[in-house]
Amino acid sequence: MLMSLLVVGSVGIDTIETPFGRVENVLGGSATYIAAAASFFVTPVRLVAVVGDDFKREHIDFLESRDIDLEGLQIVKNGKTFRWGGRYRYDLNARDSLFTELNVFEHFNPIIPEAYRKSTYVCLGNIDPVLQRRVLEQIEKPRLVIGDTMDFWIKRKNAELNETLKLMDVLVINEAEARLLTNEPNLVKAARMIIHIGPKIVVIKKGEHGALLVTERTIFSAPAYPLEIINDPTGAGDAFAGGFIGWIAKSDDLSDDNIKRAVIYGSTLASFCVERFSLDRLKDLTHLEIHDRFREFRELSKFDEEVVVQ
Amino acid sequence: MLMSLLVVGSVGIDTIETPFGRVENVLGGSATYIAAAASFFVTPVRLVAVVGDDFKREHIDFLESRDIDLEGLQIVKNGKTFRWGGRYRYDLNARDSLFTELNVFEHFNPIIPEAYRKSTYVCLGNIDPVLQRRVLEQIEKPRLVIGDTMDFWIKRKNAELNETLKLMDVLVINEAEARLLTNEPNLVKAARMIIHIGPKIVVIKKGEHGALLVTERTIFSAPAYPLEIINDPTGAGDAFAGGFIGWIAKSDDLSDDNIKRAVIYGSTLASFCVERFSLDRLKDLTHLEIHDRFREFRELSKFDEEVVVQ
Repeated sequence: MLMSLLVVGSVGIDTIETPFGRVENVLGGSATYIAAAASFFVTPVRLVAVVGDDFKREHIDFLESRDIDLEGLQIVKNGKTFRWGGRYRYDLNARDSLFTELNVFEHFNPIIPEAYRKSTYVCLGNIDPVLQRRVLEQIEKPRLVIGDTMDFWIKRKNAELNETLKLMDVLVINEAEARLLTNEPNLVKAARMIIHIGPKIVVIKKGEHGALLVTERTIFSAPAYPLEIINDPTGAGDAFAGGFIGWIAKSDDLSDDNIKRAVIYGSTLASFCVERFSLDRLKDLTHLEIHDRFREFRELSKFDEEVVVQ
Repeated sequence: MLMSLLVVGSVGIDTIETPFGRVENVLGGSATYIAAAASFFVTPVRLVAVVGDDFKREHIDFLESRDIDLEGLQIVKNGKTFRWGGRYRYDLNARDSLFTELNVFEHFNPIIPEAYRKSTYVCLGNIDPVLQRRVLEQIEKPRLVIGDTMDFWIKRKNAELNETLKLMDVLVINEAEARLLTNEPNLVKAARMIIHIGPKIVVIKKGEHGALLVTERTIFSAPAYPLEIINDPTGAGDAFAGGFIGWIAKSDDLSDDNIKRAVIYGSTLASFCVERFSLDRLKDLTHLEIHDRFREFRELSKFDEEVVVQ
């Protein structure tokens, strides 16, 4: 049976400044990065999002070139696409939002096309937890629901978020958000607390420090790829989620061993994503490069059994 | 040939507060943690340090129980032992020094006993880089010199530290110090800059995020052990250095593969160290526990080759 993957989230236009350059009006949005990363594993990825009719043809062309199904992409007439501007500081770990114009995203109502309602895998990008739940209400028995969230929802819609978490199988969250959500500094304890709320699998993204996978039965620590040039961290977390769920959907295997592999594919896609601005690196990325980097991740973290010397 | 290991650094008395408890006048000091950790791999570890005659018999007894050679431990008559007090905050990543009384440590002049001058391996704990150099001037052709430093020396004695770095084969340093030393936020680049100064092997300790090894030919990312209970982070970096150099001295193998194993032994000793206050956990630690945890580190970071599903 062919597995299907549905991605719901934001599609937007970004203006980004990092110590290494500045780009204006480039493609962005959580669903964009997730879908593009996942498209290296499963096609067509089903995308549900909203844009205005100012959304450029070249962006549509790119999404179609990745074989992303756009039936669920709402294009609002006379509407303006969601825009975000951000600046990264010197060490790339902190960023300041320069502006956020929600535009058509403010009244986004995710309507799942009939053809998507039997999606096997569902990936909920970082949107209002109420909307995430509304998506799930329209899907018939998905095999796995993976979701993301952010500090904004943890602080402003905590009760709603907790309800939504109960419906997720996998939560992919960053380190600071995991601590904020649980009020627990120890990440392993924080992950166990999240498992207690609902998701049976928790992946904590730690940026330059890799990722931590915690399930009911296992703990896995994935290294970060030691990139010396990081031009733009935007979308790294979403590319991670896309590579992760893309691999799971492709392999259709929910064993712990395979979820570990998915974490490495997520890390692989994230590591490519940050090499260039916006989604530029994903435009010419090849399967061979993904394969090679997966192997490099193994080399990076592999060590032999001890040799007993007495 | 039997390998010998010389450790030079501080031996002191600590008062420590963490969110999980408070201990007064307990054993501490960089050389203490290094020597105790290394003593699980090579004995006797040769210790050069200074204390006052207020240094308690029970501490001497502990060091002797670990088969640490105390010929190089200077005991200053009517002198007071170095004392430090610190408090760790909620997340254990930040600490405040409450007091530092250098006492006899202020005029420490490391005199290497005749019997130690042919030590094969030398580990320089975090002391004034001028003193570190003075130690090396007294040693005949060591096979490997490993050293540590801290923000204080990076800021106050930068030129002296740079001279000393040229004489080190391995620098074991924490993340913040690596960035401070090189003024480079990217840790891989920072490590390469340090290699350019002198040490051919750089190990960057990242606390809860594990450790990064960079040599001229390889990069290795070691996970942190996912401890849920950390009572006292004091000495973790020194226990790491001790486990690291202890394994290298025991195996006498400087291949990249073996240095990776040493990073895991360092991580292993550090992970035990923080389970209890002061050096308490090292008092009843067994070789079997070390062996088992080394294997757990493998499980933690191991993932299989991908399965090709089309």
